[in-house]
Order: sequence, then C-alpha cells, then structure tokens
Amino acid sequence: MATLGLVEYDAAAPEVRAVYDDIMATRKTDWINNFWKALANDPVTLRRTWASIKEIMGPGGAIDPLTKEMIYVAVSATNQCGYCIASHTAAARKAGMSDAMFSELMAVVGMANETNRLASGYQVEIDEKFLTR
Amino acid sequence: MATLGLVEYDAAAPEVRAVYDDIMATRKTDWINNFWKALANDPVTLRRTWASIKEIMGPGGAIDPLTKEMIYVAVSATNQCGYCIASHTAAARKAGMSDAMFSELMAVVGMANETNRLASGYQVEIDEKFLTR
Amino acid sequence: MATLGLVEYDAAAPEVRAVYDDIMATRKTDWINNFWKALANDPVTLRRTWASIKEIMGPGGAIDPLTKEMIYVAVSATNQCGYCIASHTAAARKAGMSDAMFSELMAVVGMANETNRLASGYQVEIDEKFLTR
Amino acid sequence: MATLGLVEYDAAAPEVRAVYDDIMATRKTDWINNFWKALANDPVTLRRTWASIKEIMGPGGAIDPLTKEMIYVAVSATNQCGYCIASHTAAARKAGMSDAMFSELMAVVGMANETNRLASGYQVEIDEKFLTR
Amino acid sequence: MATLGLVEYDAAAPEVRAVYDDIMATRKTDWINNFWKALANDPVTLRRTWASIKEIMGPGGAIDPLTKEMIYVAVSATNQCGYCIASHTAAARKAGMSDAMFSELMAVVGMANETNRLASGYQVEIDEKFLTR
Amino acid sequence: MATLGLVEYDAAAPEVRAVYDDIMATRKTDWINNFWKALANDPVTLRRTWASIKEIMGPGGAIDPLTKEMIYVAVSATNQCGYCIASHTAAARKAGMSDAMFSELMAVVGMANETNRLASGYQVEIDEKFLTR
Repeated sequence: MATLGLVEYDAAAPEVRAVYDDIMATRKTDWINNFWKALANDPVTLRRTWASIKEIMGPGGAIDPLTKEMIYVAVSATNQCGYCIASHTAAARKAGMSDAMFSELMAVVGMANETNRLASGYQVEIDEKFLTR
Repeated sequence: MATLGLVEYDAAAPEVRAVYDDIMATRKTDWINNFWKALANDPVTLRRTWASIKEIMGPGGAIDPLTKEMIYVAVSATNQCGYCIASHTAAARKAGMSDAMFSELMAVVGMANETNRLASGYQVEIDEKFLTR
Repeated sequence: MATLGLVEYDAAAPEVRAVYDDIMATRKTDWINNFWKALANDPVTLRRTWASIKEIMGPGGAIDPLTKEMIYVAVSATNQCGYCIASHTAAARKAGMSDAMFSELMAVVGMANETNRLASGYQVEIDEKFLTR
Repeated sequence: MATLGLVEYDAAAPEVRAVYDDIMATRKTDWINNFWKALANDPVTLRRTWASIKEIMGPGGAIDPLTKEMIYVAVSATNQCGYCIASHTAAARKAGMSDAMFSELMAVVGMANETNRLASGYQVEIDEKFLTR
Repeated sequence: MATLGLVEYDAAAPEVRAVYDDIMATRKTDWINNFWKALANDPVTLRRTWASIKEIMGPGGAIDPLTKEMIYVAVSATNQCGYCIASHTAAARKAGMSDAMFSELMAVVGMANETNRLASGYQVEIDEKFLTR
Repeated sequence: MATLGLVEYDAAAPEVRAVYDDIMATRKTDWINNFWKALANDPVTLRRTWASIKEIMGPGGAIDPLTKEMIYVAVSATNQCGYCIASHTAAARKAGMSDAMFSELMAVVGMANETNRLASGYQVEIDEKFLTR
C-alpha cells in the first residue's frame, strides 16, 4: 500500500489535475498509473518529475522513444524495481517492442550485469585507448 | 592491477589465442582489450563469455548492434562499473553513437534511476493493468 | 515466508527473550516485528545485530534519531528493500517525520540516484579541491 | 577523463554560462565543479538537472539543507559513486557536518546496508502493521 | 505474472523440451521451476543460460557445488532478487546447507554489505600491499 | 584520500591501539590495513566493526574461514567496491584460495548477477515449492 496513499483525479487539487491532464494528453490515454497518483501527494515533485520525463522521453531527440523505453527497462531490471519493470515493459510494448526485442533486451541486460562483475572482480585496469578521447 | 595479471597474445595457450583471433576477426580490429586478457587466466570462462557476447551482441537480431551497446552502457553506468563504462562507451561510439545520442542515453539512465527509487520509496502498488498480459 | 520461520516470544529461548525484552523496552512498544523474529533463529546474529542497532540508532549522538531513521529509509529505497522501506518508514514517522518531510526525503533520494549515474556515466574526474582535506 | 570533456566557463555558450552563474551565485562560490562542466556538453540536461537540484536541495523546505546533503552522501556511498561521495561529503561539511556527524552517518549507512540484506536474505514477510496507513 | 508467460513442457517445442529434459536429468528431479519456463520463450537464451549454469555450477571444479550455491544466495541477497533468493536457498539446502550454515552465510553477506559502504564512504585508499601480486 | 585521514599506530589513542593489537594478534600479522586506520577516527565504530568481523569471520563456525572470505569477495564484486575486492581477495588467497578457485568464484558471481536480472526482468513468479518450508 502506497505510503501516502494514491490521489485520484476527482480528489486532486487543480495543479495536480493539470499534470494528470497533460500526462493523458501526451500519452494519448485516459488513465493515470499509480506512480503519478502516489507522487501527487507532493505536487512539486509531481510537476518536476513529469516535466523531466516529458522532456527526456518524448520524440524528436537523437534516440527514438522505443529505444528510450527499452533503456528504461534495462535500468529497472538491473535495479530490481518491480513496479518500474512492470510499467516500463508495458510502455515499451505500447511503443512497439516485440517479444523478440524484449528477449534480446533481457539477454543484453543479463550479460552486461555478468561482465560488469567479472571486470570489477578481476580488477581489470582500464585500457589506455579507452582513456583518451 | 588485474588480480591474476593479463595474458598477452604471445604468451597465450592455443585455446586462448583462438578466442583472441576470433575476437579480432569479429570486431575487425587488431588488438585485445584488458577484459579478455584478464579472463584468459581461466580459458573456460574466456571461451564461454566470448561465445555468449558474440551470440548476444552481434547483428541479425531484433535489436540493432548500436542499440545493444547503448543498453550495455546504461547497465554499466547504473552499476558504477568504471571499466565497463569506459569500454562500452568506446564500443557504442565505434558503432555509431553520436555525442547527442550519448547525452540522451545518460539523461534516460539518470531519470530511470531516479524514478526507480521514487516508485519503491513511495511503496507504489503495481497497477492491475500491468499485471495482465 | 521467512526462510527459517519466525520465532515467537512464547517459543523463544531465554537469550532470545532477553533481546526481545530489550527491544520492547528501548522502543517503548509491546510487540516485536518480523525482522527480529526471523533473525532469532540465529541467537548470536540476533544479539549482535540488535546491540549494533541500539548503539547506532539511539539518542545522544551527533545526529538526532529522526534524521538517522530518514537516512535508513534513504538507503533502503536506494537498495529496493521492500521490508526495510516499510519498517523504517514506519519508524521514521513514529520518530516525527511528517508527510512533507517524507516527500522531500524521497525527492533527495531520487535526485541523488540520478546524479550518481550521470557522474559515473560521464566519467567525471574528481576535482582536485575534493581530494584534499 | 570525462567522456565528452569539460566545458570551461570561457568556452561556454551563453545558456551554459547562465547556469554556471546561477550555480556560483546560489552556492556563494567562485568556481564550478567538474560534474557541471561535464553535463554542459548537453545544455538541456545541464539546465534541467541544475533546476531540479536547486529546487530540491535549497533552504525553506521541511528538511534542512545539511540533512539533505547527508542523505545525498548516504545514497552515494550505498551506490559506490566515487565522484558523488567526494563532492557531497565536501558539500555536507561546508553546510556544517562535523567529523562526528560524518562518522555517525557512515555507521547508519553501513548498518542499513547490512540489515537490508538480512531482511531480504531471510525472506522476511512485511508485518501487517506496516501495511496499513 | 511472467512478462511472456510460462512455457509448460507439453506445449514446448522440441529444442525447449531437450533443455528441460537435461535440466531434470542433471538435477535428478522431475519438475522445472518457473525461471526456465519464462526463459523458454526465447529458446536461444534458454539454451545458452542453461549451458552456462551447467558448466559453472556442476561438480568436479575447484569449488564444491554446495559452496557455489551459497555464493549464488549471497549475490542474490545483495541484489535483492526475491525469486533468486527463494530458488537458490532451496537449491543450497538440497545440496546440504544446514540452518546453521544459512545463518552464517547471511551474517557474512550482511557484514560485507556494511563494510563495503564504510570503505567507500570513508574514501579509503587501497593499500600498496593489495596492489601487487 | 580518506575523508578523515588515517590513524597510524603511533598516533592512536589507547582504545584504538587495543583494537589494532587484537587485529594483528588475531590475523597473525604485523600491519594494519587502511580500512581500520580510516575507521579509527570513530573509535566506537572501529571497536564494534572489528568485534563483529571477528565474531563472524573466525574459525569454529558452520562455514570454514576460506569459504567466508570468498563470500565476502562475491558480495564486494557485486557491489563494485574496489577497496573491498582488493582487500578480501588478498585475505581469501592468504586463507588458501587458489587461482582456479578465484576464477570459479568469479564465474559464479558473474552468472548469479546475470540470472538475477533475467528473473526480475521476466517478472518470474516464485514457484509454490519455494514458498513452503
């Protein structure tokens, strides 16, 4: 159960509703997921977090939105964040991630987590070539 | 200094040289980075790890090689693995990652790490919609 | 379900009861939470862990007990430990953390997790000024 | 060496200089640390990150600035971020953290990291009392 | 609910059944746990992961199978992976881990997680003696 | 450079010297590594941490000292703690870990970190069998 509870649309203050409205318009959907309803207990953090997410995850950048959602899933799986894995896997699928892409994503994430520990565990020095730009 | 030292090509056993040769041929390069030279102290792990990396990271899958390298960087930055950040950032650039793509990648990684903790810290329940396939 | 089960007061050995009694007296409460009941399967670890917690988290130090509980929540959210987030959020509230303080705590924790990855991902060198005492 | 290099004040674009100026004015200092110089390669992320930090870490909230800096150190030590530990330890000291406070902070961070793993490793169920608001 | 669902034996393709059969034969058991049924949606990853696990975790190496299972539990508890803690604790017990061994394992894991943060938080330099082979 | 500096034997207070003496006597060595010299700035944490380490890592328990040192390395590599990897790898070798054992240890640690993310990323439900004692 969310620590401060969930703020539903009908009970939300105008500043919170404005964020909810923008989330739904931006995502072309008619519902708000629990993450935002929990953050809404702190309207300042709700506004700032949504503004950041909107700026970072939207179209028009150097990386396409689907790839960005898959990167989000990669980080969330690495961090073992159950909520984030569930919500961003759903978002990535909505953005076009196929089952085959999901499986490859997981293979890369798994392998990276493995070799991260091999590199640190063996105390491998960074190659000179990697230190120069 | 690498725990077991680095195995240079000239001093390597035939089974290790075979892996080194395949790495260089696959990557169209003429050098081996320290990660593999450290792993080479354990030829079984060297062979298995390279075979896995080759299978996962190569072309022909559902995700393109550049995207896979960027996912590798995302995981490595999340885990704070200095060696892996250095080596896979270099690999991603070689695969075509521009400075603008790198910066967007970092923005996504940073944001995902932030919201992962907001979601867990607020103890947000997973939405019903995310639990059904 | 806890791996080794939970040791209830009535079934506890005298050395375990002595720790339970001290926990309840120190915390001015009449119940023991599951963490201690799980640890009680190993009376040595139960005793040592409680003694450490009591020494570290109590009043009279350079940091007040409420701040220490909030730091505990910060670490637990960073590590994604569900049990610890739940139990230490409750403890922090009992010690006086308001909803506004909780929300600010989460904002700091989220931001720190974000910039931790930006700093490592961009491979930022530590400034000379930070290396000298 | 920072992946994209460091943007010094003299070489910075006006939008970057504006952020640098605000950092120095806000912090009452005459220098910019490397973190911001690295981020400055991406002016959008520089602006957004500084705006967020300024909003979150400043005075006037429910948690005082010194406590917030100590929470930042707690997260950074948990994540093993060398740069962040160095920079935020310096910031916390500037904000008034004594050696005794630093040592207590570390004791809490260490203990929290220990019990986080005991709780998860023993698979402790969350107490009913912690699930209700 | 597993993202791509679970592939049961009766519905599995021949290449998946072959892996399932080998898992059951190797482990001298007549059932397959959910981890493999989830991976089976990607037969390539299923095959590779099982082959790696079989090569690494089996008897005949320099470390005995029980110790290897306990190391697996140590990593899983450190990473807060609920599924992995549950499955590898069961595997370790099947391999001979007593309750006393489990409790000692947890004590070591907890302590290591604590001192890992004390070492990084205090910014301790690595001793010269540890840098030479 | 260690945040609070290193406390050398000659400059240490009697209570710190007593701990140093016990460390050297217990480990049958004539030097103190930097970790303890850094902690010595806080004699209470120095005493408590050493007492805990001594109780947990010594002989006579259900797990032998070499295995416990290898578990310590496994956790430290998972957490990317450079100091701890260096110091506990040295300790494990002193306790009898061969190069072959080190390599197998790393293989297990790497694999566990990989499958931890596959299990969480695929959102695998815990099997009923693992939930019952």
